[in-house]
Amino acid sequence: MKKVGIVMGSRSDLPIAEKAVGVLKEYGVPFEMRILSAHRCPTEAKQFAEEARGGGFSVLIAAAGMAAHLAGALAANTTLPVIGIPCRSSGSDGTDALLSTVMMPSGIPVATVAIDGAKNAALLAVQIMAVEDADLAEKLEKAREAGRQNVLAADEEIRNRFAE
Amino acid sequence: MKKVGIVMGSRSDLPIAEKAVGVLKEYGVPFEMRILSAHRCPTEAKQFAEEARGGGFSVLIAAAGMAAHLAGALAANTTLPVIGIPCRSSGSDGTDALLSTVMMPSGIPVATVAIDGAKNAALLAVQIMAVEDADLAEKLEKAREAGRQNVLAADEEIRNRFAE
Amino acid sequence: MKKVGIVMGSRSDLPIAEKAVGVLKEYGVPFEMRILSAHRCPTEAKQFAEEARGGGFSVLIAAAGMAAHLAGALAANTTLPVIGIPCRSSGSDGTDALLSTVMMPSGIPVATVAIDGAKNAALLAVQIMAVEDADLAEKLEKAREAGRQNVLAADEEIRNRFAE
Amino acid sequence: MKKVGIVMGSRSDLPIAEKAVGVLKEYGVPFEMRILSAHRCPTEAKQFAEEARGGGFSVLIAAAGMAAHLAGALAANTTLPVIGIPCRSSGSDGTDALLSTVMMPSGIPVATVAIDGAKNAALLAVQIMAVEDADLAEKLEKAREAGRQNVLAADEEIRNRFAE
Amino acid sequence: MKKVGIVMGSRSDLPIAEKAVGVLKEYGVPFEMRILSAHRCPTEAKQFAEEARGGGFSVLIAAAGMAAHLAGALAANTTLPVIGIPCRSSGSDGTDALLSTVMMPSGIPVATVAIDGAKNAALLAVQIMAVEDADLAEKLEKAREAGRQNVLAADEEIRNRFAE
Amino acid sequence: MKKVGIVMGSRSDLPIAEKAVGVLKEYGVPFEMRILSAHRCPTEAKQFAEEARGGGFSVLIAAAGMAAHLAGALAANTTLPVIGIPCRSSGSDGTDALLSTVMMPSGIPVATVAIDGAKNAALLAVQIMAVEDADLAEKLEKAREAGRQNVLAADEEIRNRFAE
Amino acid sequence: MKKVGIVMGSRSDLPIAEKAVGVLKEYGVPFEMRILSAHRCPTEAKQFAEEARGGGFSVLIAAAGMAAHLAGALAANTTLPVIGIPCRSSGSDGTDALLSTVMMPSGIPVATVAIDGAKNAALLAVQIMAVEDADLAEKLEKAREAGRQNVLAADEEIRNRFAE
Amino acid sequence: MKKVGIVMGSRSDLPIAEKAVGVLKEYGVPFEMRILSAHRCPTEAKQFAEEARGGGFSVLIAAAGMAAHLAGALAANTTLPVIGIPCRSSGSDGTDALLSTVMMPSGIPVATVAIDGAKNAALLAVQIMAVEDADLAEKLEKAREAGRQNVLAADEEIRNRFAE
Repeated sequence: MKKVGIVMGSRSDLPIAEKAVGVLKEYGVPFEMRILSAHRCPTEAKQFAEEARGGGFSVLIAAAGMAAHLAGALAANTTLPVIGIPCRSSGSDGTDALLSTVMMPSGIPVATVAIDGAKNAALLAVQIMAVEDADLAEKLEKAREAGRQNVLAADEEIRNRFAE
Repeated sequence: MKKVGIVMGSRSDLPIAEKAVGVLKEYGVPFEMRILSAHRCPTEAKQFAEEARGGGFSVLIAAAGMAAHLAGALAANTTLPVIGIPCRSSGSDGTDALLSTVMMPSGIPVATVAIDGAKNAALLAVQIMAVEDADLAEKLEKAREAGRQNVLAADEEIRNRFAE
Repeated sequence: MKKVGIVMGSRSDLPIAEKAVGVLKEYGVPFEMRILSAHRCPTEAKQFAEEARGGGFSVLIAAAGMAAHLAGALAANTTLPVIGIPCRSSGSDGTDALLSTVMMPSGIPVATVAIDGAKNAALLAVQIMAVEDADLAEKLEKAREAGRQNVLAADEEIRNRFAE
Repeated sequence: MKKVGIVMGSRSDLPIAEKAVGVLKEYGVPFEMRILSAHRCPTEAKQFAEEARGGGFSVLIAAAGMAAHLAGALAANTTLPVIGIPCRSSGSDGTDALLSTVMMPSGIPVATVAIDGAKNAALLAVQIMAVEDADLAEKLEKAREAGRQNVLAADEEIRNRFAE
Repeated sequence: MKKVGIVMGSRSDLPIAEKAVGVLKEYGVPFEMRILSAHRCPTEAKQFAEEARGGGFSVLIAAAGMAAHLAGALAANTTLPVIGIPCRSSGSDGTDALLSTVMMPSGIPVATVAIDGAKNAALLAVQIMAVEDADLAEKLEKAREAGRQNVLAADEEIRNRFAE
Repeated sequence: MKKVGIVMGSRSDLPIAEKAVGVLKEYGVPFEMRILSAHRCPTEAKQFAEEARGGGFSVLIAAAGMAAHLAGALAANTTLPVIGIPCRSSGSDGTDALLSTVMMPSGIPVATVAIDGAKNAALLAVQIMAVEDADLAEKLEKAREAGRQNVLAADEEIRNRFAE
Repeated sequence: MKKVGIVMGSRSDLPIAEKAVGVLKEYGVPFEMRILSAHRCPTEAKQFAEEARGGGFSVLIAAAGMAAHLAGALAANTTLPVIGIPCRSSGSDGTDALLSTVMMPSGIPVATVAIDGAKNAALLAVQIMAVEDADLAEKLEKAREAGRQNVLAADEEIRNRFAE
Repeated sequence: MKKVGIVMGSRSDLPIAEKAVGVLKEYGVPFEMRILSAHRCPTEAKQFAEEARGGGFSVLIAAAGMAAHLAGALAANTTLPVIGIPCRSSGSDGTDALLSTVMMPSGIPVATVAIDGAKNAALLAVQIMAVEDADLAEKLEKAREAGRQNVLAADEEIRNRFAE
């Protein structure tokens, strides 16, 4: 199976990125975890993206905060799908990262998820891989059904608790 | 080849959605164009999403404005990748649609592109399909290279015009 | 008397929703409390709304955060009045939920109250039921007068404390 | 049948308010149209609200822009449901009016609709009156079904136009 | 000397309002402290403003949060200068209160100060009274000079600390 | 009678500033009109403010856009009341000017009015002068009453037009 | 004299970039004009920045809109000062470009000017070069004085026009 | 070597300003630290800027919050490059300071860095001085390389930790 690349802009994004790891392990999807800054090691970040398709990657996930250029910088150097996670940072609610990630110019899309939305980024990567992988698609359906059952159980419990 | 579903929330989103069509035709990717409102025909929108994987779709693209629930409503009813285009509307700069599209809860991702970013939505759909389709991947690389040549030509022209 | 449906998008919205319960009990208005996610159990949420009028509901209250689609999703499936409470969440000040709740397209209104405004949501539900219920209307007037007296008492106290 | 009060903060809000009139006429709901400014004639605005329930009103709709206090000022003087329409103005996109209308303190709710959302304000008024009026409820269901058919017809047309 | 009216929208605004008191005492300006809600006791708030000029008030200061209508409601009922303090609240950074206070319609100005800017509100009231009161004007100049000396002393200290 | 100083940051603010002139003429309040930039002629702007009280001014009004420092720069150099008008500019909706004008530090208040609110700035200046000028106060009351009558006449006309 | 590099992200930024050219010509500062996209020709953009210091550049100016990564991408590949101009675009007021340009991570500064502030970007470049160039410094002082005289002349004219 | 002036608007900005000191010491760049308020000691702030070039300064750095006029006030009185640090404050996320610092009018640029971005402000000052100082330029390159190595080391460590 192809692997997913999870790239952080800095070590401080690790708590976010680790949530993506959990999802990928749950689905048995191989991955590689990297710290590559669009600004502090642009050569390595560029090279990583350029070689990603040939290196067996299916999808790249980039987590970065503030003027979050990482997802865009990867997307500029590969035609693989790139998923961007705008990260909240010590001094920002994430609006800067959201706009820096999602407002990409025509020709270089970044698939943006919610602020700090690492779980959904990983899930989206799995959904992308599942387009041509029936096993993964089935796992997704099962997980969706499990999520639904969780809500229904909570609904049942709350409904009873508040029933007079 | 699987097909891409392009869904608008209302007829007024057609000028945006048509830009996506142009890109898909360029890549020879089959598509189906729909108007399905999360609010005005929820049953049909739901059914469309539920049957999408079985019906030969690979990716769904949803274009909607204001409290843009369409992408999320489709995503809630399929595990296919869903791409959301937040649309500007007569009375909004698109911030409402951007937040309504991208800030999805854990478990139900929407791959969000820029406000009115229909070309990139279609391109992202092609990138997703190209993960397992070498021909499409090659076409993407060629188009990327063509885009690069366009910029370089413009650079050449500008550089000369302003050289003293 | 008809009952009010209070629907949360997830269990984490319970502290907000419980404030609505307090108000309804104060007015002796029957209610039903539910957890129904527009995204995680769309079928059940849809069915609940479709059957609400026939099931003896007068008004539905929906509390949800982030890309808060719940109120809109209920409103799309019933013509009962739907009141939306945009909820603050762990990673958002509620602006996303406010815009996702209030900016509904023509034809499907949601009566939106302040961010986390559960008490007012319940009070609005009572006001709606009081249009044709003179007893409830009287209770509302009495509560309003009591609120007024509270302010006047506080005014009296403060006025004296700061009088020289 | 009780009547709906439509109140504008100034004459410049008339184009918005007239959209509400159209909806109410469609449903055969009687209404009264007023210009009453919370700031320029506070006594009359207050008196109107105080006498509204006794004067045969069921619901009040207030349309105002900028620091839009009108809906709140009416709500402070009646326990009838008050619907607020935040209006865009010559020098504002309506964010100021939205926040001034929706962020009401506990005890005094305003049912807020979208910026310039006059049709939905009127529709919400009809929904409120329909809680205890089966005829109105039936009309709402029919209109909803008609809206659904409109979307489905547009969908059919678009689907065919883009079918290859 | 005429007195300044300090009006809070609710008791929770007291910590803010007390800062204004400190300034007024410093300048020996008489004041009256009130809790009067534009929404919870509109009659009393209106009456207070209507009688303010006759009652010996020179300036009114209003502190309120959220959809902060208080300053505007007072201004609508008096032609005395009204100073508005937009207050941060438990669930808002004060943007809602700022816009609700400052964006007043033509004809009814509110002199708005910074979010939670109670000291400046009081100082502005003193400045207004000092237009025709040479003693107050002199006190203002002295306080300004004292503030200047404080900064210069801090500058001296920092300059030395960091001099090599 | 003391005079009001109206200061613009640049000639492009003249259309705004002229609205203030109209109001002052209406009330017979003398004024002086100046163009003084906090950034382009800081020495002259500073000197103007320093000499304002001695030069017979009662109140200063400053109209400026973008990083609107003018009102604050005047306020830093006088203890007269300074009213700030945040101006919209060719490339901004006025939010930058509003925040730059209103968020003044403790000790140096600026009485801020609405974006482009020149009429209210002038009216506020008149209100300030009227604190100790009974004639002006009476004129203000008359104008307020005239404004009220205008609204009531418009109300009458609209009420009849829409009466069935 | 070293030269200034003016880099646009796309041809549509030319009207903005040309304003910078005018300023540089006025000061006799040599420059080179380029179109280099951080996303569409990342290799060339990177190479340009890497070779800038050696190639005789003193300062780089980058003009880009939306998720404006250009200034940051240049700054990541040179230690020359990089000035960023956030550009408004057809579908954005420039807030996205401002945040994407200014919110750079520690270690890689971008000297950001106002939205569409090309003149100031060029002026800042001249100021930087003037730190060690007395002739340029003198020209800057003269231009500043000329600007001051312009304002004073306008002030004179306005003052007379409005003097009674 | 010329020195850098670091100016704070108030003592509360010291923790931010000290970060700049650290960077300048690292590069052996002399500096002077000042507290000078544009509003509380405008004469001294003006004088400091007017004498800065003659006094041996190369660049001025200004750190201020709220309606942050300090950088602009310095820039108005010198033609040296002025770098502005918009500071978060107890009651603001820094948006007010960012807009007040960056949106300068044509003719008076301020080189703005990120909110609380004191390290980058100092680094930018060093970059400016390094345009004509080969030793500083070399130090910048070395520090950049060291920063790159830090990221690569972190990358190595993370890559191994997550390799299966």
